[in-house]
Amino acid sequence: MNTRFFAAPSTAGPSGHIMARIIAKFGGTSVGDIGRIKAVAARVKAMTDAGDEVCVVLSAMAGTTDQLIDWTRQTAAMHDAREYDVVVSAGEQITVGLMALALQELGVEARSWLGWQLPLSTDVTHGNARINRIETAELIRRMGEGQVQVIAGFQGLGADNRVTTLGRGGTDTTAVALAASIGAERCDIFSDVDGVYTSDPRIVAKARKLDKITYEEMLEMASLGAKVLQTRSVEAAMKHGVPLRVVSSFNNTPGTLVVDESEIVEQEIVSSIAYSRDEAKITLQHVADRPGVAADVFGPLAEADVNVDMIVQSSSGNGDATDMTFTVARSDLDRSLSILKDLKPKIAYTKMFSDADVVKISVVGVGMRSHAGVAGRMFSALAEKGINIQVISTSEIKVSVLIAEEYTELALRTLHTAYGLDDD
Amino acid sequence: MNTRFFAAPSTAGPSGHIMARIIAKFGGTSVGDIGRIKAVAARVKAMTDAGDEVCVVLSAMAGTTDQLIDWTRQTAAMHDAREYDVVVSAGEQITVGLMALALQELGVEARSWLGWQLPLSTDVTHGNARINRIETAELIRRMGEGQVQVIAGFQGLGADNRVTTLGRGGTDTTAVALAASIGAERCDIFSDVDGVYTSDPRIVAKARKLDKITYEEMLEMASLGAKVLQTRSVEAAMKHGVPLRVVSSFNNTPGTLVVDESEIVEQEIVSSIAYSRDEAKITLQHVADRPGVAADVFGPLAEADVNVDMIVQSSSGNGDATDMTFTVARSDLDRSLSILKDLKPKIAYTKMFSDADVVKISVVGVGMRSHAGVAGRMFSALAEKGINIQVISTSEIKVSVLIAEEYTELALRTLHTAYGLDDD
Repeated sequence: MNTRFFAAPSTAGPSGHIMARIIAKFGGTSVGDIGRIKAVAARVKAMTDAGDEVCVVLSAMAGTTDQLIDWTRQTAAMHDAREYDVVVSAGEQITVGLMALALQELGVEARSWLGWQLPLSTDVTHGNARINRIETAELIRRMGEGQVQVIAGFQGLGADNRVTTLGRGGTDTTAVALAASIGAERCDIFSDVDGVYTSDPRIVAKARKLDKITYEEMLEMASLGAKVLQTRSVEAAMKHGVPLRVVSSFNNTPGTLVVDESEIVEQEIVSSIAYSRDEAKITLQHVADRPGVAADVFGPLAEADVNVDMIVQSSSGNGDATDMTFTVARSDLDRSLSILKDLKPKIAYTKMFSDADVVKISVVGVGMRSHAGVAGRMFSALAEKGINIQVISTSEIKVSVLIAEEYTELALRTLHTAYGLDDD
Repeated sequence: MNTRFFAAPSTAGPSGHIMARIIAKFGGTSVGDIGRIKAVAARVKAMTDAGDEVCVVLSAMAGTTDQLIDWTRQTAAMHDAREYDVVVSAGEQITVGLMALALQELGVEARSWLGWQLPLSTDVTHGNARINRIETAELIRRMGEGQVQVIAGFQGLGADNRVTTLGRGGTDTTAVALAASIGAERCDIFSDVDGVYTSDPRIVAKARKLDKITYEEMLEMASLGAKVLQTRSVEAAMKHGVPLRVVSSFNNTPGTLVVDESEIVEQEIVSSIAYSRDEAKITLQHVADRPGVAADVFGPLAEADVNVDMIVQSSSGNGDATDMTFTVARSDLDRSLSILKDLKPKIAYTKMFSDADVVKISVVGVGMRSHAGVAGRMFSALAEKGINIQVISTSEIKVSVLIAEEYTELALRTLHTAYGLDDD
């Protein structure tokens, strides 16, 4: 619990504990009702009793933000993002006030802060704003006096003097940005999961919880759809060297530390096997093999906010045409097909196929950089089980394959064993 | 509908309508769900279509504020009023954002304002703050451009840079203060009642809706517990000469105008018969008849925040002692008796009696000032029905009597007839 990452000036706490400045972020289920808010307050009190200076960052009560978003949709189909932000930021206002009260009730000095009060300054991209600056002098002063600071996550103040929100999962981003701004020793992300696992424990019974994982690995996993942390917050933590800890708010297990590669002494080659079912495959057959054709295909999709992930282009052998296969989010499939249909005269493909019954399986690990044969082991393990690979894509620390969705569980268990990750 | 009270500079609207600057306040039931919010937006659109410049002031959705208050109570018995304000002000934030969206959806330009944004500056009496100043230049500029301004009621910004709330019914106060600050021609209070009646129509079938009522009468009625308008907002309207209109948000009846006495040509002597069941009577027998004894009784009650209303002191005939009878709010009765019991050695009364089965009946009317015999007619009308009067108190425009609660309905109907208020 007391692992230190920075040589920041610290003093010994009441029990010889090294005093640390900690950001503790609690998600919506952790503050889902008054009982849970009180439980979180007790947990924060234990941290202050141990001598730590604590800054709490909160989400809205579980379900509240969804309700507020639904109300904005019922009210107006195309909404003014500035008014949307006013509505959806109300949930965090409620939880921070209640948390300050719950802490005070336990005899812990506390006060709440809203985005505009700090201020937490953002750009004016309402609904998905970026943080420019957080004024922290007053927070640091008060923390030094033993007062717990309770910050509304997800919200900020735009340069237009209006409320902004940071997009889905924005409370993680608030927590990490605050940790960087106040020079926190650690940023604890409390939620209903108790850490990062080698694979989904609901599917892979032998999955193990990881003690540590690198930012890079966590980033790949977040972008694969693992709901533990938002991509943006991991990026920010990596950029600013903020040690993150993913920890359960419902038990006292130590969780998983997300740290720089240098912090992990014995790095496994592969740390986890991830998957994403949110995939759909599109193939364009016999696309004219000329310069600019890829831009003709992917430009209009990008303009329509369709995110294209895996891309394979392969010659079909006749010299002047090529097949193009790529994946999009399943929810974007119909829209993508419609756009591509309109583009048929321009792109001049002969046929278009699509398949939504696919899954992306990825092996992730920074150890890959220094070890050859990682991808080969994946391909042969899947081949042994008769699983056909449809598309392959790789990054420096990840190999992903697209396979038929029905093989998801078999593939995950097979690879978990093949890379030596099984719990004994 | 277009009655004008000030000779403010105005221009003719699209249909020759005299353009007016109007504050329209909608209560919690009027914005109780998305359907009602849309209905209010349509009503506001009709006002702007007629050429009026409109500033909307909103409460939270019905039930929201009570829920938020309940959460603060569940969290902490003795709460920090600053954090209480953070929590309970969230409801208005939701409705103003949704209303701006609903108006935009109808093609009406609109934007929301929170208390800290205007700012609406208050003192730091959290939970019951007083408004110091409202910055309105930007509101007036935008209204002049045809944009509807949507203001969160009930909330402000304290000198401590924290959220304040204005106490129960504070949204009425926000509306009236805004009307005064921007020089509005009228402040419409929309709610689920369609005006001010000569008496409670649930009890007095022949009660009539009043077209006009004076501030002074409205004030007496508000202090008698009539829930139409908060006392503070009527006081503020009277002080600044803001014409109020009490009007239903569910139909198009004209409602009741609350105006200066000079605006009412033919003033009835008595305009309404009001009642309050929130009364309890305490009698102290044989109190020493010496200077300062009243202070000994009422000082400690005031310190305990017990509001004493009607007071009667009568000699019991033995020359050195007096009986003292007074009323307190029913919810304060037990506390008051306990305080008075502790004071027995000091005050030296012989016995203490109390009675919570009492009701205060009041006849209200500015015409009383110039007409004798108003009180006498009340006493004889009640006597004819065999109703015993326990305590009497009077103000310049009101006569109140305390009677046994079981006579409430009989007394109201009798007086309504006696003062010629019955609907034909």
